[in-house]
Order: sequence, then C-alpha cells, then structure tokens
Amino acid sequence: MLIALLPGDGIGPEVVAEAVRVLEHVAPDLRYEQAPVGGAAYKATGHPLPPETLALAKRADAILFGAVGDPACDALDRHLRPEQAILGLRKELGLFANLRPATLFPELADASALRPEIARSIDMVIVRELTGDVYFGQPRGRRTTDTGRREGFDMMRYDEDEVARIATIAFETARGRKRRLCSVDKANVLETSQLWRDVVIEVGARYPDVALEHMYVDNAAMQLVRAPGHFDVIVTGNLFGDILSDQASMCAGSIGMLPSAALGAGGPGLYEPIHGSAPDIAGQGKANPLATILSAAMLLRHSLGRAAEADRIEAAVAAALAGGARSADLGGSHSTREIGDRVLAALA
Amino acid sequence: MLIALLPGDGIGPEVVAEAVRVLEHVAPDLRYEQAPVGGAAYKATGHPLPPETLALAKRADAILFGAVGDPACDALDRHLRPEQAILGLRKELGLFANLRPATLFPELADASALRPEIARSIDMVIVRELTGDVYFGQPRGRRTTDTGRREGFDMMRYDEDEVARIATIAFETARGRKRRLCSVDKANVLETSQLWRDVVIEVGARYPDVALEHMYVDNAAMQLVRAPGHFDVIVTGNLFGDILSDQASMCAGSIGMLPSAALGAGGPGLYEPIHGSAPDIAGQGKANPLATILSAAMLLRHSLGRAAEADRIEAAVAAALAGGARSADLGGSHSTREIGDRVLAALA
Ligand SMILES: CC(C)[C@H](C(=O)O)[C@@H](O)C(=O)O
Ligand SMILES: CC(C)[C@H](C(=O)O)[C@@H](O)C(=O)O
Repeated sequence: MLIALLPGDGIGPEVVAEAVRVLEHVAPDLRYEQAPVGGAAYKATGHPLPPETLALAKRADAILFGAVGDPACDALDRHLRPEQAILGLRKELGLFANLRPATLFPELADASALRPEIARSIDMVIVRELTGDVYFGQPRGRRTTDTGRREGFDMMRYDEDEVARIATIAFETARGRKRRLCSVDKANVLETSQLWRDVVIEVGARYPDVALEHMYVDNAAMQLVRAPGHFDVIVTGNLFGDILSDQASMCAGSIGMLPSAALGAGGPGLYEPIHGSAPDIAGQGKANPLATILSAAMLLRHSLGRAAEADRIEAAVAAALAGGARSADLGGSHSTREIGDRVLAALA
Repeated sequence: MLIALLPGDGIGPEVVAEAVRVLEHVAPDLRYEQAPVGGAAYKATGHPLPPETLALAKRADAILFGAVGDPACDALDRHLRPEQAILGLRKELGLFANLRPATLFPELADASALRPEIARSIDMVIVRELTGDVYFGQPRGRRTTDTGRREGFDMMRYDEDEVARIATIAFETARGRKRRLCSVDKANVLETSQLWRDVVIEVGARYPDVALEHMYVDNAAMQLVRAPGHFDVIVTGNLFGDILSDQASMCAGSIGMLPSAALGAGGPGLYEPIHGSAPDIAGQGKANPLATILSAAMLLRHSLGRAAEADRIEAAVAAALAGGARSADLGGSHSTREIGDRVLAALA
C-alpha cells in the first residue's frame, strides 16, 4: 500500500513526520512517497500543486496531508497561492465528503474554553461538503463596473446530485452513531439553501430511523457554544462547514487535536489535521502533532480498512494524554517530537 | 419625535411592549405608531412588509423592531416569507451599517457557556454590513439545468463603495473605543473577500491611529470562543456577520441580552434585539425583554441624540440584574413583565 505524503508549509512537515513515525510502528508494511505542495511547491516549481504531486496523489492508496499557507505568498495571484493546492486536490480527486469528528478527550476538559461540564458533552461528527458551494461556483472574479467601481463576485451554487450524495454520507454516518442528524443551512435567505433543505428531506425519506432536524447557520453557531452536546452528526455546505468545524474544534479543547478525512466516490482519500500551517510557530518544534496522528488513524480505518490499527493509535493518544503529554496549545511545554515519543511509548 | 413600532411575530410583541414601557418612563415626550410586519402582516394583508408599514417606517424618526419568523409560513414562496420584511426594510431604508455590541454584564458571568474568566473579557462591537453580499446579490434563484437537475444559486458580491462606507463606520467606531479593528473575510478562497480586504486597507490609510488586522472567518469563529477578549471592533460582511454575532451573543451569556442598531446614510435607524421570534416560547410571557430594552437605549443614543436617557436605561438594566432579575434564558424564572417591572423599579 502506497501512502502519498504531502507535508506542505509551516508546521506541516513537523506534524507529518510524527504521524509517519507512528504509522511505521503500527503498520510497518506501508510504503511512502513524498511530494511538495503549497507555498513550498510554489517556491520550488512555480506551482502550488505541481503535476507530479497531483499524479502521486492519484496513484496512491491514501494521502497524508500536512497544511498549506505561507504569508510570503500573500501577494501572489489567487491561482498561484498555497491554498489552491488543497482546493485543487479536493476537486481533482473528487473528494466531496469531509468528515470532521469533534470529541473531547476527557483528559482535556480543562483545555476547552467552555465550562468543563459543557465541554464534556461534545461528541459529534461534522460532515462538510467539500467540492461545491461558493468555493467553486462560476462565475467568480473581480472587475470594474460600467460606473467605474471595482467589484468582486463569487457564485454560491449547489445542484441536487451534489447535495444528495453528501446527505447520503451524513445519514449513513448518523446510522453508525446516535441516529441524529442536524442539517445546517440559511434557507430563510438563500435559494441555494432552500434546494439544500429540500434534497436533504428527500434523501431522509430513505432513513426513517434517523431523526432529522434543520437549523439556520447563525443559530447553529450559537448552539455549538451553548449546548454542543445537542449534536450527533451535522451536515452542511462547504462554507458553513469551514466555519462551524473550526469553531467546534475550540470547544473540544484545541484545534491541534482534530483530524479529518476527505473522501470521494472511489480512489484515494485525503487525511489532514483541520488546523492550518501556523507560520508563527513553524520550525520551532512546538506544534501539536496529535491531530495529524489521529488523521493517520482515520487513514487506516477509512482507506485501508485496518480498524484494529486505527484503534491502537487512538488508544495510544488517549494514554499519552492521560500520562500528561501536553504541547503548548494545551497549556503544556512538550515539543512536537516529545508528544510523538509519548504516543510511541504508549504503543510499545 | 415619532417612533415606529413593528413588533412582528412570536415573542416580538411581548418584548417590544416592555421596551415601550421603559421608553415611556424615561422619554415621555415620544409618540408611537404601530404597524404589522412579518408573518403577522402576511396573515392580515397577504404581504410580510405592507406598503403602509414601509411608509410608516420611512416617516418615523426611528424604528423599534421586534422579530419576524413564523413556522406557519415555512411553505410560502420566498418573497412572501416573514424574513423578507426585515430584509426589505434594511434595503428600502438603506440601513447598511449594523452595530452589534457584545458585552457581558458582570452579573451574568455564570450564564455564559464560556469559563467565567474568559467570558468576563468580552467587550466588543461587531460592525456587520447589512445591504449587500450573498443576501442581495444578483442573479439568485432556482432552476433546472440542461441535464435535468435542480440547481440553486445566489451571487455573493460587493463593490468598493459598499465596502468603503462600512469600513469607515468601523474605523470611526474603533476610534471611539480601544482603537483596534479586526476585519474578517475569507480572502484565501473568495474574490469578494479579496476586494473587501483591499478596500479596508485603503480606508485604513486614513486611520493610522487604529490598529488593523485581518482574520479568516474560520479562524475568527475559533478565536471568538478561545479568546474573545482579543476583539475590540470587528467589521465583516453580511453573511459572516450574521453567523459571528449570534455566536458572540452566546459567549456573552444569552442571545436574550444583545441589542442592535441598523443605520443608513440619513433617515431613521432601526433598532432590534438580535434574537429571533422564538416561536417555541411565544405567548408564554417567558421571553427576556432586555435585548429590546437595550435596543431602545441605542435608539435614544444613535437616532435621537439623547445619550443621557440611554445611559439611564443601561444603568437600570445593570441594577435589575444585580438585584437578581433573571428570565428563563438566564437560568431564572422571572416573566417578561416581571423583568420589565424590575427595570422600571430601578429607574424610579
Ligand atoms: C486553506 C483553506 C482553503 C481551507 C478551506 O477553507 O477549506 C481550510 O480552512 C480548511 O478548512 O481546510
Ligand atoms: C431573519 C434573518 C433574515 C436575519 C438575517 O439573517 O440577517 C437574522 O438572522 C438577523 O441576524 O437579523
């Protein structure tokens, strides 16, 4: 089995390195090939997603991704910026379904900004659509109007097939959990959301055993703080999912803890921490590698069908936390490498 | 001075009634005229924003608005739904600047979902653009594509004049506070956001005394939970502002506490609680009227230039809270009327 390693920018290489050490320990038969992506790739090749990188991703069995984003690239044209690499990979590989579990390890109740009794109730999966919405809609661009004013525009757009396939993944996910699904939209304002809501209801007819509710996005952002324990599975579009999953991460202690999987209809899945490249702490060995280590566990489970090894990694992370492993984001002072060491020790 | 009262749906009439009692006490010279709006207006006249209601709003000196939204209207065509009334008022009156202060009354530190030490640090104003963005962009609609699929679409759009005028309001607001402004966008993905960022920077050149930073919306949603004390003034577009201000309200104890002002280039301002019509508790006398009472204070300050009376109302709300006034949303059992009584008692 071939794993494509795309470490990317900032803290990406540091956290991916620890995840690979863990993978090598639990699944010694895996092979790895690495390629540049993001700002690192732009500097090396003039393109944030070089053809060779995309080709490697396509022929791999799964992709372990770090992070992209580099302030040195801020002035570049949009299509040359590091973020285009992850958007391009999602689109080219058809990775329309983003699974973002948010759970609080009980050991971290004190790290959440929420009151401990509220934080402890968090156990949800956000299912975010990943290849549509205002991220990819056409037309989009900037121009000068007839009246000489600069204008920017981006089309928000969904069709029924795009909504139905992500809704199906969400209902199936809910079936494997507490059978409660909350669909988040802004149907009181947006036409796109009204279509979204109609199609989710239609798909729901095939899942009478799953309790479906609808929530406006402004209310959902509020409830995620007020009563996060209310949620089991959330399904939402690309833009709302981007916002709500980062928000949920903070309720769950630290964005440094949360993994994600991006899956398509076939072909390799892509696994990445939901945090970004954190240029402010890059190269200092301070980043929390647990989100990436947990992403490697998701890779084993979802792309390779090796749930037992995934369980072992997750148990080792819990054990390391119980043993006091804490990087800076969790209020501790362990280095990236030390956190990796402690997970490896728990696996031994 | 004529105040237009538009109580609307659900708990709207209950909370507006208490705000009027308070206004009558501190400013006995004001006159009132009332008109139907939202679902209530649709039922009475077949239109959520009847021409007479709009005419009253236009000739008033200020508008006190309750809330719109009625589940009984969910199946109606979009242009007949209650929410169209508030969107129509904003657009017709040119109310492009929405000021949403979020502060925690110290007495309510225990009502926030955040840890008390984090909650206590909250003192910000969210300046939300209110007449542009994906709320109003054209084209928008639903159709069937050539391939026979249903599709929904909404154009996200801003031009430089729309961004410059809201940015100016935000910089001026920051000047009257701690001189820190955070502009929130998604410039790593959206063309609209790149224009937004460019124009905010241009306007900022006239405000060298205000510290300007830029934050992606996903990060902002996270930081509002992690470190809300970081923020002084936030400026953002219509959609992101909708989400972030509801989220901030929960950090501040309860959405039942937060007022708002919608202002234009001239003409009447519109004042409303940021909460909705809460159909689940309508007619039960349980709603918290403080957000509407505080909106009446904003009305006195911003539209009538009567800051002393506004200060009196705000002090009376603080005194009522200190005296133990707590509606259900704050964990108490006082009725809407009892909360109003306690504010009036504090004013006496
Ligand atoms: C880097 C950026 C384009 C990306 C997104 O907005 O999807 C990131 O925020 C994420 O959530 O994976
Ligand atoms: C009722 C709705 C259209 C409105 C909005 O989205 O602007 C509300 O949520 C608000 O924030 O005032």
